[in-house]
Amino acid sequence: MERILGIDPGSRITGYGVIESARGRLRFVSCGVIRTTPRAPFAHRLNEIFDGINEVVQLHGPEIAAVEDVFLSNNPRSALKLGQARGAAIVAAMQNGLAVRDYSARMIKQAVVGYGQAEKVQVQHMVRILLGLSASPSADAADALAVAICHANTLRI
Amino acid sequence: MERILGIDPGSRITGYGVIESARGRLRFVSCGVIRTTPRAPFAHRLNEIFDGINEVVQLHGPEIAAVEDVFLSNNPRSALKLGQARGAAIVAAMQNGLAVRDYSARMIKQAVVGYGQAEKVQVQHMVRILLGLSASPSADAADALAVAICHANTLRI
Repeated sequence: MERILGIDPGSRITGYGVIESARGRLRFVSCGVIRTTPRAPFAHRLNEIFDGINEVVQLHGPEIAAVEDVFLSNNPRSALKLGQARGAAIVAAMQNGLAVRDYSARMIKQAVVGYGQAEKVQVQHMVRILLGLSASPSADAADALAVAICHANTLRI
Repeated sequence: MERILGIDPGSRITGYGVIESARGRLRFVSCGVIRTTPRAPFAHRLNEIFDGINEVVQLHGPEIAAVEDVFLSNNPRSALKLGQARGAAIVAAMQNGLAVRDYSARMIKQAVVGYGQAEKVQVQHMVRILLGLSASPSADAADALAVAICHANTLRI
């Protein structure tokens, strides 16, 4: 049995999702989003991401964090912002002794939908089916759960 | 009297420098670099940056961190790497309760050399003069000291 924390980092909204994987069976544990304070200094927002991930780890005790390789925009300024959010989330996991693994958007889609070019909405639909959720999580939380599922399914192979 | 930690973040080498500023007088406290393990997983290297900054803060007790706004390359992949290193360094300072301030390369050069387009070597030379150092610190450590000096001089104005 393994508890997996999926993270979809972003400077405004960071999605997280915790699942359990045991002998190929997946179980939903928790999911949600960390919203940083708009117009707060950027360092403060990074710290909110660190604190948020720290809290989720303390609460749900995952052993591993699976992090989405952030969307590589053509804009270096966006990449820099996203990179800082990703760095804050990763060190929060590392400081809690979690192992950290990266998955590209293509690997995540392949693992969850079976098709690397799948649409975002298909991923969200499959997350709901695979975890037997009665309602759809928010888009960012669903993306984080998808990374966690990707890690669980990659291990099984 | 204020103790200032200057940080020049980078995924391979992160420079740091600690100075004291009292009534417009600057005093050198410490400087050095955090070298991350080459070929180690990137998350591990980010964690080394966090641990390194954490150690410097615990050892020298600065109240504020001044961080260089990283060089904005045209390459989004480099910006993403640099962003993650910067995020790791900033949250290490924030988790220790430090205030964090950003300074652009132009502001730093202006504050240290009096000229925003100054060459890197001029900055290093002036850092040595302003702090009365008998030897030149390494380039990355000198850059970090320059950010700290910039913060001190900006406050004085």
